[in-house]
Amino acid sequence: MSKQSANDPNSLKAIRIGIDTYQESVVYMRDDCHICRAEGFGVQTRVQVQAGGHSVIARLNVVESLSAILPAGQIGLSKIAWDRLGLEDGDRVSISHPDWVNSLSYVRSKIFEHPLNQRQLLAIVSDVLHGRYTDVHIASFLTACANRLNIDETAYLTQAMVDVGSRLEWPGTDIVVDKHCIGGLPGNRTTPIVVSIVTAAGLTMPKTSSRSITSPAGTADTMEVITPVDLDLEQIQSVVREQGGCLAWGGNVSLSPVDDILIRVEKAIDLDSEGQLVASVLSKKIAAGSTHVLIDIPVGRTAKIRSRSDALGLKRVFEQVGERLGLIVRPVITDGSQPIGQGIGPAFEAQDVLAVLGNRQDAPPDLRERALLLAGQILEMAGLEPTGAGVGRAARLLSSGAAWNKFKAICEAQGGFREIPEPQFRHLAVADSDGRVKAIDNRKLANLAKFAGAPNAKAAGIRIFIKAGDSVSKGDPLLELCAETQGELRYAMYYLQQNSKYIQFY
Amino acid sequence: MSKQSANDPNSLKAIRIGIDTYQESVVYMRDDCHICRAEGFGVQTRVQVQAGGHSVIARLNVVESLSAILPAGQIGLSKIAWDRLGLEDGDRVSISHPDWVNSLSYVRSKIFEHPLNQRQLLAIVSDVLHGRYTDVHIASFLTACANRLNIDETAYLTQAMVDVGSRLEWPGTDIVVDKHCIGGLPGNRTTPIVVSIVTAAGLTMPKTSSRSITSPAGTADTMEVITPVDLDLEQIQSVVREQGGCLAWGGNVSLSPVDDILIRVEKAIDLDSEGQLVASVLSKKIAAGSTHVLIDIPVGRTAKIRSRSDALGLKRVFEQVGERLGLIVRPVITDGSQPIGQGIGPAFEAQDVLAVLGNRQDAPPDLRERALLLAGQILEMAGLEPTGAGVGRAARLLSSGAAWNKFKAICEAQGGFREIPEPQFRHLAVADSDGRVKAIDNRKLANLAKFAGAPNAKAAGIRIFIKAGDSVSKGDPLLELCAETQGELRYAMYYLQQNSKYIQFY
Repeated sequence: MSKQSANDPNSLKAIRIGIDTYQESVVYMRDDCHICRAEGFGVQTRVQVQAGGHSVIARLNVVESLSAILPAGQIGLSKIAWDRLGLEDGDRVSISHPDWVNSLSYVRSKIFEHPLNQRQLLAIVSDVLHGRYTDVHIASFLTACANRLNIDETAYLTQAMVDVGSRLEWPGTDIVVDKHCIGGLPGNRTTPIVVSIVTAAGLTMPKTSSRSITSPAGTADTMEVITPVDLDLEQIQSVVREQGGCLAWGGNVSLSPVDDILIRVEKAIDLDSEGQLVASVLSKKIAAGSTHVLIDIPVGRTAKIRSRSDALGLKRVFEQVGERLGLIVRPVITDGSQPIGQGIGPAFEAQDVLAVLGNRQDAPPDLRERALLLAGQILEMAGLEPTGAGVGRAARLLSSGAAWNKFKAICEAQGGFREIPEPQFRHLAVADSDGRVKAIDNRKLANLAKFAGAPNAKAAGIRIFIKAGDSVSKGDPLLELCAETQGELRYAMYYLQQNSKYIQFY
Repeated sequence: MSKQSANDPNSLKAIRIGIDTYQESVVYMRDDCHICRAEGFGVQTRVQVQAGGHSVIARLNVVESLSAILPAGQIGLSKIAWDRLGLEDGDRVSISHPDWVNSLSYVRSKIFEHPLNQRQLLAIVSDVLHGRYTDVHIASFLTACANRLNIDETAYLTQAMVDVGSRLEWPGTDIVVDKHCIGGLPGNRTTPIVVSIVTAAGLTMPKTSSRSITSPAGTADTMEVITPVDLDLEQIQSVVREQGGCLAWGGNVSLSPVDDILIRVEKAIDLDSEGQLVASVLSKKIAAGSTHVLIDIPVGRTAKIRSRSDALGLKRVFEQVGERLGLIVRPVITDGSQPIGQGIGPAFEAQDVLAVLGNRQDAPPDLRERALLLAGQILEMAGLEPTGAGVGRAARLLSSGAAWNKFKAICEAQGGFREIPEPQFRHLAVADSDGRVKAIDNRKLANLAKFAGAPNAKAAGIRIFIKAGDSVSKGDPLLELCAETQGELRYAMYYLQQNSKYIQFY
């Protein structure tokens, strides 16, 4: 590999400065650096850093020459910048002005309500992939598109996200099924159960899931508690060849890699919008080689989708964008009025999943019913059962232990079972007085679980002891708040005090 | 002042790590830090840092424990974080989870097209002022409001921006005039001329200007080439008491301080929208104690405002918001079809201003005419001249040398004259063939000047040798590109090659 030469006046010796800036590349240059002077670089300038054929755009932080952290003649690189350039100790890098990013003018044009065409969206997605957007540019793009992408734009964005990534193929298989829940409903962890049932029926379901965007757990976060999910492309293909399905994290296989970059900023601004949502979901499905996709749309006053008419709108967008991209999409509108299952947070949701699959007495009936409904729909979509007969078949596959055996086989193929972690710090919330539960607030409970540390802290979250309609007496436990650290427990308890209406009584 | 105690388990010894992160506070903590573990802090977490009654919200960058840049038991603070906390060597700081930022839910609600009320906008503006928004949150807020603020929201935002800052008073003066150009027209540097004329007529015009947002020069950038503009409140009041007017930078006096924070992010995403624009302009004017404000709205195919109907729309917003806030606002629509004057960039525009004020033969006639028109309107607004007679009076004040004397007196009061810097690196662009100039592209010329280093490099920019309608022969000079560094000149020349249509010929 060709390296930068010490004779290049714009080259500096690179050092791994040991600062982790997550996904945004940052470089550190001294305020007396000759390149800063020659090129007119200042704090927060975007610079292009090149080494041996690789190139990244990085944000510049300026280091005072008095400071001891950076010797003269050197440039410090944050962890991600170092890794992306594939540097080794002693390497030199070359620093220059980045090329003009044309696609930023398309973002500006979108802000002023001009629709984006296919070429423009591909340019934006490609520039995001190649690190030419800083976080504020991505935040602006996401905000400009929130609630404002038409069907054409959504289809173009979806296609662009597929085009810049890898694409899986499943030779010899005509039907490849998949499912996705649009979220907003804590504890609605049906995916592992659905995959186990439909693959037990002989279907192919190579399920790759994302980590949580704004929720206390995604399927990948939950499955990670049970078994390894960081599979590479080859491992996924081998597990699916062997078992018909998998339950892997999608982030390692570069399926719609831009989606992961966008999701990181969506998370920071706590935003998850319709067009983006459809593009995110369908781009992953198309890239994964799916042909039939079921979408679970929970509706409830405190769910992501609050009304039936909003749900019908989203359903149409999914169907129309799917049709344009040659994908059969079946959105199913479900009850999202309160959390599903008994726990919120990766470990708690994993326990609920295992209880249902194992046909245990203490399994949450609402999670079981929901999973059977969805699995039944997939069996019907794929033509294995006539309309109306899918749920019955799904229930038989679950009760017989076929789904449980399939789940165990998939986990074994992915690398075996893990011990589910237990939280160290707990706080029990009890009823102040007698009463009957009117409603449970999905959003407040999701926030509460996040403040307790979920999903990064796997054992953190909430155990819920009640459902809407239940009668409680003063002193009865309502929920248990669980955290891995004292600080997070304190933080969540503080939120609980400030938001007493997380459960409403008649 | 009370300092954090070494007994506080969440306190660490602070060190000034010597990294300049501009306006965003960043802290550096080791990956083995007990507080990160106890509180569940990870890379990019927002943390609250407190010391002696001060508090900032900072973004966390994690330092590997192997790295030598941060000893165990210490926390590194970026320059701005250190300065905001007012720390001294040896001080300890306390680190905790930041309070929940309620106003972020208002931003989200705005993204989904719910109008914001007065209380919500005040909460957002106040949280921005207190550093509770990171840059991605600010970018999202600005994008959500771009083109989508109604009159009420714009008035509330304006008032909120005034309320959180200082406010100047001019006791004994009933009429305080001001002007603002909404920009987009390179070289349109009328303000120093207008201030000199109307204060020579006896009016009070305490002009505070901003630095450039997305243009190659703002009035503050240009005036800084001629005289000190970094005046504090007391200095501004003293100059105005003495001379009736000033030409200062507004950033030192905390008039609408949130505007400066928003502008920094607007600049990064190259966004400048209608409601934000009106709020930015009028909040500064109200905070400066103005009663009568003239707004210059240049219209042209390549100006910020492209059509007469857009200009009329913006005019109405200015008038309506002004009326709601008790301010007399007169927007004037002007010709924005091509750059004004002979130069673009701080030093070149300063030279044009001095040529007009000095009644020099080589003064650009278009700049002179434009300044007289605007000064005439102000003289009429303030009741010094009847309608139609303002321009004549303005011309007499300029020709007589009264305005020039006033300008010199103001500069002397602000700290004296500076020598105007000359650029070191130049490139002359000449005509490829004979022809007649049809149009000059404001945007492309503005970009060109910015790539050459303007406004940060004061001497950088463009000298223009032609106007629309001029005939040129092959080899005639069209413009000269000037930079302070070779790297910037190269960068601008590259842009020039890629954008040959910056001048269109018949």
